[in-house]
Amino acid sequence: MSKLNDSSFPSVNALSAPIVQSLIDNADALRLGISKMSNGTTVIDAGIDVRGGLEAGRLISEVCLGGLGSVKLRASTNFENWSWHVDVHTSHPVLSCLASQYAGWSLSHGEGKGAFNALGSGPGRAMGSKEELFAELGYKDKADSACLIIEADANPPVEIADKIAKMCGISADKLTLIITPTSSLCGSVQVVARVLETSLHKVHALGFDLSRVVDGAGSAPICPPGVDFLTAMSRTNDAILFAGQVHLFLQTGDEEAEELANNLPSSASNDYGKPFGEVFKDVEYDFYKIDPMLFSPARVAVTAMDTGNTFHAGKIDLALLDKSFSNKCG
Amino acid sequence: MSKLNDSSFPSVNALSAPIVQSLIDNADALRLGISKMSNGTTVIDAGIDVRGGLEAGRLISEVCLGGLGSVKLRASTNFENWSWHVDVHTSHPVLSCLASQYAGWSLSHGEGKGAFNALGSGPGRAMGSKEELFAELGYKDKADSACLIIEADANPPVEIADKIAKMCGISADKLTLIITPTSSLCGSVQVVARVLETSLHKVHALGFDLSRVVDGAGSAPICPPGVDFLTAMSRTNDAILFAGQVHLFLQTGDEEAEELANNLPSSASNDYGKPFGEVFKDVEYDFYKIDPMLFSPARVAVTAMDTGNTFHAGKIDLALLDKSFSNKCG
Amino acid sequence: MSKLNDSSFPSVNALSAPIVQSLIDNADALRLGISKMSNGTTVIDAGIDVRGGLEAGRLISEVCLGGLGSVKLRASTNFENWSWHVDVHTSHPVLSCLASQYAGWSLSHGEGKGAFNALGSGPGRAMGSKEELFAELGYKDKADSACLIIEADANPPVEIADKIAKMCGISADKLTLIITPTSSLCGSVQVVARVLETSLHKVHALGFDLSRVVDGAGSAPICPPGVDFLTAMSRTNDAILFAGQVHLFLQTGDEEAEELANNLPSSASNDYGKPFGEVFKDVEYDFYKIDPMLFSPARVAVTAMDTGNTFHAGKIDLALLDKSFSNKCG
Repeated sequence: MSKLNDSSFPSVNALSAPIVQSLIDNADALRLGISKMSNGTTVIDAGIDVRGGLEAGRLISEVCLGGLGSVKLRASTNFENWSWHVDVHTSHPVLSCLASQYAGWSLSHGEGKGAFNALGSGPGRAMGSKEELFAELGYKDKADSACLIIEADANPPVEIADKIAKMCGISADKLTLIITPTSSLCGSVQVVARVLETSLHKVHALGFDLSRVVDGAGSAPICPPGVDFLTAMSRTNDAILFAGQVHLFLQTGDEEAEELANNLPSSASNDYGKPFGEVFKDVEYDFYKIDPMLFSPARVAVTAMDTGNTFHAGKIDLALLDKSFSNKCG
Repeated sequence: MSKLNDSSFPSVNALSAPIVQSLIDNADALRLGISKMSNGTTVIDAGIDVRGGLEAGRLISEVCLGGLGSVKLRASTNFENWSWHVDVHTSHPVLSCLASQYAGWSLSHGEGKGAFNALGSGPGRAMGSKEELFAELGYKDKADSACLIIEADANPPVEIADKIAKMCGISADKLTLIITPTSSLCGSVQVVARVLETSLHKVHALGFDLSRVVDGAGSAPICPPGVDFLTAMSRTNDAILFAGQVHLFLQTGDEEAEELANNLPSSASNDYGKPFGEVFKDVEYDFYKIDPMLFSPARVAVTAMDTGNTFHAGKIDLALLDKSFSNKCG
Repeated sequence: MSKLNDSSFPSVNALSAPIVQSLIDNADALRLGISKMSNGTTVIDAGIDVRGGLEAGRLISEVCLGGLGSVKLRASTNFENWSWHVDVHTSHPVLSCLASQYAGWSLSHGEGKGAFNALGSGPGRAMGSKEELFAELGYKDKADSACLIIEADANPPVEIADKIAKMCGISADKLTLIITPTSSLCGSVQVVARVLETSLHKVHALGFDLSRVVDGAGSAPICPPGVDFLTAMSRTNDAILFAGQVHLFLQTGDEEAEELANNLPSSASNDYGKPFGEVFKDVEYDFYKIDPMLFSPARVAVTAMDTGNTFHAGKIDLALLDKSFSNKCG
């Protein structure tokens, strides 16, 4: 794709810094825990020793989007039992979803039982991560501070923070880490809010030129947090796989748009058809045996902006959604 | 419940003060009337001598929530004839709905025909009201100014303002009173926006430990204002009773959550089944003969966070909603 | 109608100026083009040489409303194939929709092939336009700067900017022009966001006293941009004509409200029944042969505030919407 120009693009870390600060300032009302590591890194606990909540999850999702997007809670009676949804919309989908929100930074420290392994997402990636995607996007962020969201059930060791800060080119006290357990309310909201991101990631994985992505918006129902990790992960994914919907606007012709629309929905994957927890169990918990093309919204609309035609594919499956949100996998 | 810590919790009066100020600053566009009582108290007329409107009602509802919540207008085609709804969501439901929004401060002055009797709601309660609930919540607000919302058709006498200011521990010129007639657009919106509050109040009345309430969100259709008080009151209540929906997240197990879910909806009350105005007429206008358990949303979902299971109860009844919003009781 | 008082009403240009500035400040993320004319007028390109997008269109719509309203994107599954909608709501519908948003300023320069003809909308109208409507409204804006939105496929000549600035009583460098091609994403959003305005304009055209309009809110689905002008114009209009919905609150009795409700919907016009592009083709592209009463929402609710009764008329027609959004007219 044509590179995003560093100098003319906003800093996702600078843009999201005020939201991070408001999480800290309003920690009591948002039921978040704020602490400092020995190296000065700020840690925001969003569900380990504190409760967090929907609003905290919403704000964390906006941090994930690099301050360029809005995540809104919305009620509806359309999904029968599940009345609350997130609507996700950004001023620049490729930049905010792929350069910031995508959980692409693999973090690990230690070995064996005491090892810490997790994925980092959010604006800090654009400053410190070595993922190949950034060269392709031509975007590299520079800012005074950085924030990374880590989906984990425990605080990371200080060595992880040291490493992130170093790779971001900032001192450790300029780094904020937000920890969202998968089984927390914040974890539910911030994963479900990736509905648009999953579609853009799949657009990219299918080899489509990202520079042709003009715009997009997505929506998905908020899942009740699962108590065990497997159930929690299943529900957050299934919210998108069974009931997520996305509309993409692409600068392309009918043929490419139609092919993409047909390939985009979760139902285009052979692994589609049961709650994600069962899929995971069936491959004996080997994540890499799951079809990566499974991770995408249930229903998509793709507008070919060269012709003005829109192609629709996939469908929302409320029976599967109900099964996932009501059952336990753990 | 475990007490809310004064020092660490935000001041609902301080948080809502900027919204109160914006009502005053934009009074002309919001069609509100601003005046001063002889003692210096600011009075915001939201529907007596002025028209007010949906947006003013929305902002007043956010004042009611103590600046901790958002009230959003949303369109939908789901409720056939009634296409506008409020979605209510707060960062801390117990604090904003019960310590602030609930209309629990009984205000009265004078006797006989000239008597003024009304209920006060909003952040000022947390500074000045002697309700038992505050001891239970362990929350007492301190701030430089206070605001109370009064549902009434006429301005209160200055003695009421003097009394409120004194009980709040501020001079009378630091007090703002917002007067919302039940039959005004502001009155419609601000009552319907209590959909989440009614569920939390009932959770409390049913004896459930409020400290286990983790989160919640609610939605209800905006009613067309009734011209007479009885019709207006009926419609504002019926919006919640026949078409309100709430999702609560409770730190509890299946048994308690299921029992609570079954008891929560308005339809669990024996007085359910006709517009509120008719219920009121049938008890010969003796409010205390109405089952207090009637006042709750039509449909609830309760997630037991100890297990991850969600219990659903109640139903939206569009025929009853249509009857209430179309008929007159007065 | 009773005149709106200049001195007590907010300046639509002053209120929207911060939104205009944010469009300029965030031009890269919003994919807008910023340039200066030789006379110093700022031009915001929202879809000629740049892509713009949904969020830019949303913000431009809020500029159109004179900073007095909110335009929100919202997902839904109700309209089958078209899942994104705009909800439009203002604190003062008559002022923001008619004195600002309505495209009533006829702009032209030159003759023949090189002529520039377009309609101007937005807050600048209230400063510089000589439309009769302003005398009727009794509103005339004064501000340090002005902004006008022009629906066009090319930048206007500098002479147009000079003329607008002169009529607004400001120097040319205090003027900002936002250019939204009909076939752009910004163009789609900003026209569809006129759903409430079309109903108020028709209320006025039907001879109803505007001073009796108390409040209103509207919603319509966002159309995929048509590639050619005719298709693009058809879809933006049809979004409102076939699927727009509005609720108006009028200070009037049953008879007037019912008559108005029955006359308001697009389906009350004899020209209703096919995509707007076909209507236009059938009159041989002579705009003035089209029934002006066609331009209004599909479905309306009118509440008579003297009685509290609400009158419903019109209907949403998803088959016609699908036809318009899927077909080409050009």
